[in-house]
Amino acid sequence: MLPDIVPIFLIPGSCIVGILFAVWLWQRVAQVNMGGSLSVIRGANGREYLLEEDQRGEEEVIAKAAEIQDAISEGAVSFLTTEYKYMGVFMAIMSVVIFSLLSTITPEDGRTKADELQNGIFSTIAFLLGALTSILSGYLGMKIATFANARTAVEARKGIAPAFMCAFRSGAVMGFLLSGLGLLVLFACIASFKQFYGDDWVSLFEAVTGYGLGGSAIALFGRVGGGIYTKAADVGADLVGKLEKDIPEDDPRNPAVIADNVGDNVGDIAGMGADLFGSFAEATCAALIVSAVSSLGTTHDLVAMSFPLLISASGILVCIATTFIATDFKPARVMTEIETTLKVQLMVSTILMTPVAYLIATSALPEQFELTMPGSDPAKPIDTKLVKNWYMFVTVALGLWGGLLIGLQTEYFTSNKFLPVQECADACRTGAATNIIFGLALGYKSCMIPTVVIALSIFVGNSLAGMYGVATAALGMLSTLATGLAIDAYGPISDNAGGIAEMAGMGEDVRDRTDALDAAGNTTAAIGKGFAIGSAALVSLALFGAFITRSKIDLEHSSILDPKVFAGLLYGAMLPYWFSAMTMKSVGKAALAMVEEVRRQFNTIPGLLEGSALPDYKKCVEISTASSLAEMIQPGALVMLSPIVVGALFGTHALAGMLAGALVSGVPLAVSMSNTGGAWDNAKKYIEAGNTQHARELGGKGSECHKAAVVGDTVGDPLKDTSGPSLNILVKLMAVESLVFAPFFYNINGGQGLVFQFFSS
Amino acid sequence: MLPDIVPIFLIPGSCIVGILFAVWLWQRVAQVNMGGSLSVIRGANGREYLLEEDQRGEEEVIAKAAEIQDAISEGAVSFLTTEYKYMGVFMAIMSVVIFSLLSTITPEDGRTKADELQNGIFSTIAFLLGALTSILSGYLGMKIATFANARTAVEARKGIAPAFMCAFRSGAVMGFLLSGLGLLVLFACIASFKQFYGDDWVSLFEAVTGYGLGGSAIALFGRVGGGIYTKAADVGADLVGKLEKDIPEDDPRNPAVIADNVGDNVGDIAGMGADLFGSFAEATCAALIVSAVSSLGTTHDLVAMSFPLLISASGILVCIATTFIATDFKPARVMTEIETTLKVQLMVSTILMTPVAYLIATSALPEQFELTMPGSDPAKPIDTKLVKNWYMFVTVALGLWGGLLIGLQTEYFTSNKFLPVQECADACRTGAATNIIFGLALGYKSCMIPTVVIALSIFVGNSLAGMYGVATAALGMLSTLATGLAIDAYGPISDNAGGIAEMAGMGEDVRDRTDALDAAGNTTAAIGKGFAIGSAALVSLALFGAFITRSKIDLEHSSILDPKVFAGLLYGAMLPYWFSAMTMKSVGKAALAMVEEVRRQFNTIPGLLEGSALPDYKKCVEISTASSLAEMIQPGALVMLSPIVVGALFGTHALAGMLAGALVSGVPLAVSMSNTGGAWDNAKKYIEAGNTQHARELGGKGSECHKAAVVGDTVGDPLKDTSGPSLNILVKLMAVESLVFAPFFYNINGGQGLVFQFFSS
Repeated sequence: MLPDIVPIFLIPGSCIVGILFAVWLWQRVAQVNMGGSLSVIRGANGREYLLEEDQRGEEEVIAKAAEIQDAISEGAVSFLTTEYKYMGVFMAIMSVVIFSLLSTITPEDGRTKADELQNGIFSTIAFLLGALTSILSGYLGMKIATFANARTAVEARKGIAPAFMCAFRSGAVMGFLLSGLGLLVLFACIASFKQFYGDDWVSLFEAVTGYGLGGSAIALFGRVGGGIYTKAADVGADLVGKLEKDIPEDDPRNPAVIADNVGDNVGDIAGMGADLFGSFAEATCAALIVSAVSSLGTTHDLVAMSFPLLISASGILVCIATTFIATDFKPARVMTEIETTLKVQLMVSTILMTPVAYLIATSALPEQFELTMPGSDPAKPIDTKLVKNWYMFVTVALGLWGGLLIGLQTEYFTSNKFLPVQECADACRTGAATNIIFGLALGYKSCMIPTVVIALSIFVGNSLAGMYGVATAALGMLSTLATGLAIDAYGPISDNAGGIAEMAGMGEDVRDRTDALDAAGNTTAAIGKGFAIGSAALVSLALFGAFITRSKIDLEHSSILDPKVFAGLLYGAMLPYWFSAMTMKSVGKAALAMVEEVRRQFNTIPGLLEGSALPDYKKCVEISTASSLAEMIQPGALVMLSPIVVGALFGTHALAGMLAGALVSGVPLAVSMSNTGGAWDNAKKYIEAGNTQHARELGGKGSECHKAAVVGDTVGDPLKDTSGPSLNILVKLMAVESLVFAPFFYNINGGQGLVFQFFSS
Repeated sequence: MLPDIVPIFLIPGSCIVGILFAVWLWQRVAQVNMGGSLSVIRGANGREYLLEEDQRGEEEVIAKAAEIQDAISEGAVSFLTTEYKYMGVFMAIMSVVIFSLLSTITPEDGRTKADELQNGIFSTIAFLLGALTSILSGYLGMKIATFANARTAVEARKGIAPAFMCAFRSGAVMGFLLSGLGLLVLFACIASFKQFYGDDWVSLFEAVTGYGLGGSAIALFGRVGGGIYTKAADVGADLVGKLEKDIPEDDPRNPAVIADNVGDNVGDIAGMGADLFGSFAEATCAALIVSAVSSLGTTHDLVAMSFPLLISASGILVCIATTFIATDFKPARVMTEIETTLKVQLMVSTILMTPVAYLIATSALPEQFELTMPGSDPAKPIDTKLVKNWYMFVTVALGLWGGLLIGLQTEYFTSNKFLPVQECADACRTGAATNIIFGLALGYKSCMIPTVVIALSIFVGNSLAGMYGVATAALGMLSTLATGLAIDAYGPISDNAGGIAEMAGMGEDVRDRTDALDAAGNTTAAIGKGFAIGSAALVSLALFGAFITRSKIDLEHSSILDPKVFAGLLYGAMLPYWFSAMTMKSVGKAALAMVEEVRRQFNTIPGLLEGSALPDYKKCVEISTASSLAEMIQPGALVMLSPIVVGALFGTHALAGMLAGALVSGVPLAVSMSNTGGAWDNAKKYIEAGNTQHARELGGKGSECHKAAVVGDTVGDPLKDTSGPSLNILVKLMAVESLVFAPFFYNINGGQGLVFQFFSS
């Protein structure tokens, strides 16, 4: 067994190492000179840079890129600060709600008024901390991405390798910064709360759960708001630019082009960062809250209690080791290597993490310990279960390898190297409709393996160690978060680099390279979304389990035969659809507004199409900002209010059903949306790139096939970047919210709900 | 209380009255003269027929229509007979499986080998009876529809009213024939089985459940095979005809046009007939099996046991009364009245049925009776619950009115009279992509109310009378089946009439009328699908409840916290996606094959486009037949094998989870698919018809908007006519199959499953 000193130093230590590593990577990215000549880095470490002579010294182009970068960065900062104002209001309201609902509970089971007050106060503080960390994560991610975009474009002038390294390093900066920061703040939060809670670990970790709630609540608005922003701009720009005016993607004459690029940073980067931070925070909180009531908690075994944190901490170190492979030892040098290099990242980090997890499980945990589980006997609602320490290695490894498997199968379904996307592209021969039919079928099919993997992880994890097993499986999947985030963030950075290359007029060959980077990025983005939904499913089940325990629901009252549970199940299964209806429609509406503005500018600004006049980019940025902020309120309210309304009115049994229903219906819907969208995007890229005989037969850019592919791509945009990824937040946020408010629901006549209390009285 | 003689006469009596009514209606349809002049019926009952002078006496046109009708009928018969050969093989295999799995069970609980053998034999017989009745229902429906198509077209020459009456009467023929036949065969089956079972009602009704299995198994192949057939032909015809060659829909020059029209008859009519017959058979079986173990069964109260059958029987009489409103008293005379007339049918039948249901509940059922329910105490797995007879009125009324509500909201989302479809049409301004985005959002949104209605029916039904309440709610929804089928069948009949009018060259004004009939038909088809999925959800939950009882699963082992149950839940929630992936892809593939053939004919047959040469219709019919039959095997196998494999390998708890998961995830998916497809189809019709200022602004036929709308329509075809409606069969078929095989699963180590038996041994 390890001494107590190990977690106390190892956990914050790993975080700091991770953050320092991120800073070091940032400096390497910053070496790309945006102001002067290229001589500084050219051939820096003896690598063949394929430098194109004719591009050398085009200082004007670089200056143009820097200028565009500034515009994008400015737009992103302006959107985020406005969004944060909304979030500030939300946080203030939510703090009042949390504090007042939790601190006014009639105490039971030997608890005092002061205990409830303390729980109210600290849950609120934890909520605010989580929310602020989430905001910070998103903001930093956006800053890094806007910093890296133009640099990647500039590097693409020299070849694939430097551009790839620049984009990937920037992604890694975000990955390490976020995972280090998230764990560090959580650790500090626990350590400082401990001063007040002393040995009452159960209450301590119940309060800490607010951290997860804060993280995910902000992530929801980030994902939804950012998602609507980015897709309104993207769809709007494409509809007029590509389909009506026949000008290429990211053409500087398109008034919506800056808004589109801003969107990539605020939606795909800031939103995704906040999302995965939320998953991480919730998974850790779920694991901690479950283990607090186990024998680990009751015997105050600090090292064993730190097991979930130790897994995350060691994951950061494993990812650092892995990162060097892509950034230094074996970066992608030609187009075809890009995807493989990113895939190797995933695989190596998984392989390295496996023995580490075994080491931690066997050294941090006692040989066996007792977990408490909901019991079957109404007289004895709590049962115990004996768990061996290697079980926990199994559960972590399940999540870890399950994540990899989901990642690899996502690659198969969304990469244009494989048959599914090629079939989609081929279906474009007969027009947009068959492309859409094939794409939808592809997405539906692609949720088979992820669902089975998640179901298996849940089954084994739950069988071995109840909800602790499920929570640690989630942590296992998220242990390589830094790498996952790096390859995920790499996508939008490359996408934006392509946009900047186009706008700065960097030439066809540069654009081809950024397109290749971007195509791989579409796949990695889908992989990242696969991870996000997979971990969200596990996380929310673990939270759900903690909620069941905290609301004192026994097994028979969570039976699918219970009328309340089944009605809740069905209602919950519908929620992802309702939510998606809102977000899809919002994108559609915002895109229509954008289309009108872009058309207006083309019609009223003389010389715009000829390139002799500049469009009014700002106006488009404003439209995206205004509509996305207005449109994020409804879906946000649906997610935030559903658990509170159902729990308070219909009671905890109906709420339990609702959470399970939303989970099982949300997972396949989200996976299919993400993969369908990713596949359509890459089917379009496949036709554009024309790398194979088959692809060339489809006619390339501007052909009828290409037009059909563009329709698919446009439909896929809100599916993959707005509705799909928001769904996993819906799933886990409702679960963590129910967990935090469980004492409040239970306080309403033992969790019976106001409606039934009324009928029974 | 009623005497025993009442159900013994009332039930078969109502069926025979229904069938006779259908025959009478058929004769009225047959009065439309296809061979001679129009004078026979012109002005028959003094109605204003708007007869157009210039069309009078066009005997050639009528002869042409008759000829086309023969071609369609021939194609449909040829497809169905081929399909029935496949089904024959399937039935033979399935009979062997049912017989051998059930009759070889090791008897328990005082049952003997002979009991198990008897169960095996009679379950198999019931299965075959159900399958044959289903086949007969589908075949008769198709015969009626092909008989009515051309007659409706001929009548459309005289005006809306005669055409509407012809189409609606034909739909009603099908409705009454199917509901009468279904109930009559079931009644005969019970009566004859009773000779062998005597007073062992529990075993009797367990064996009768095979009837439901047979009905739904055939429905599955009918829906899937027919669905692929119709949409392969439809999509294939549209892609080349409308998009490439710019010829109108149903143009006789299009080689796939006959196949398209055949498809409407074999998919939408035969498939749907079999589907709703299956729902009815299963709902009745579920209600009977639950009430057999109640005090109604144990005290051998024949009248009370017949309650479910009495509801269905009286429903037939109520629907007869309702039908006269549309066929005689107040038929639709102008285009705008069509939808209202159909809606009135639904409303009137619901209103009339309500007091009837109350009367039956209070006179057939004893004032109160005892139901058995799964108990919470492991020592006492069966609990009892006291139920008052008016509770059963409440549950029937819930289903009845719930169905109406689902119908009305479906109309709102799919009719081009209302905002949602108009918004879709408006989104076509910016191209196909926004149309698709808005349509998907519309579908997602449209599942809110149906899901809530179903959840509420389940909650109240289950709270009042356990699974008997849920089953009777399903029967309540299906009590107006004859009317539901009539308005549902009306849709494809009108669609086909339009096709025949176009092909026979009946002129623009006739086509306008059939288009108006068809637009209303799209809405009623969506309403029918809403009913189908709503009742399927209730039915499958009731079957699920019976399965739980029969597999002796107690409440705690059906908890959503049980690892097996939750893993099953998640896996089950994925099944509708997997299934839809197969069916969508099948349509896509078959459509591509059709497109190639149509293109080939246009390229190789000289004079085809000019109309001087005839296309090879047969070849297209063959392609649709071959591909739909080949493609229906995979999805069919998925549905038929999933319960057996999961139940046998992973046990009844995992299977219970899987059934619930498929149910809650399948309902919103199916509803959204049906409504999205219906809305796109009507958005297209809205633009074509140009009845409002807004619609005219969109440009009408041939405009860019219209092209975008056609893309949506094409994508919607497989969603609304193949994947969506097949999903409700998936949901209920898996449930009834699990119920039939429950003793077999339980025989594997108490329902533990082979895998876990292996691990635990």
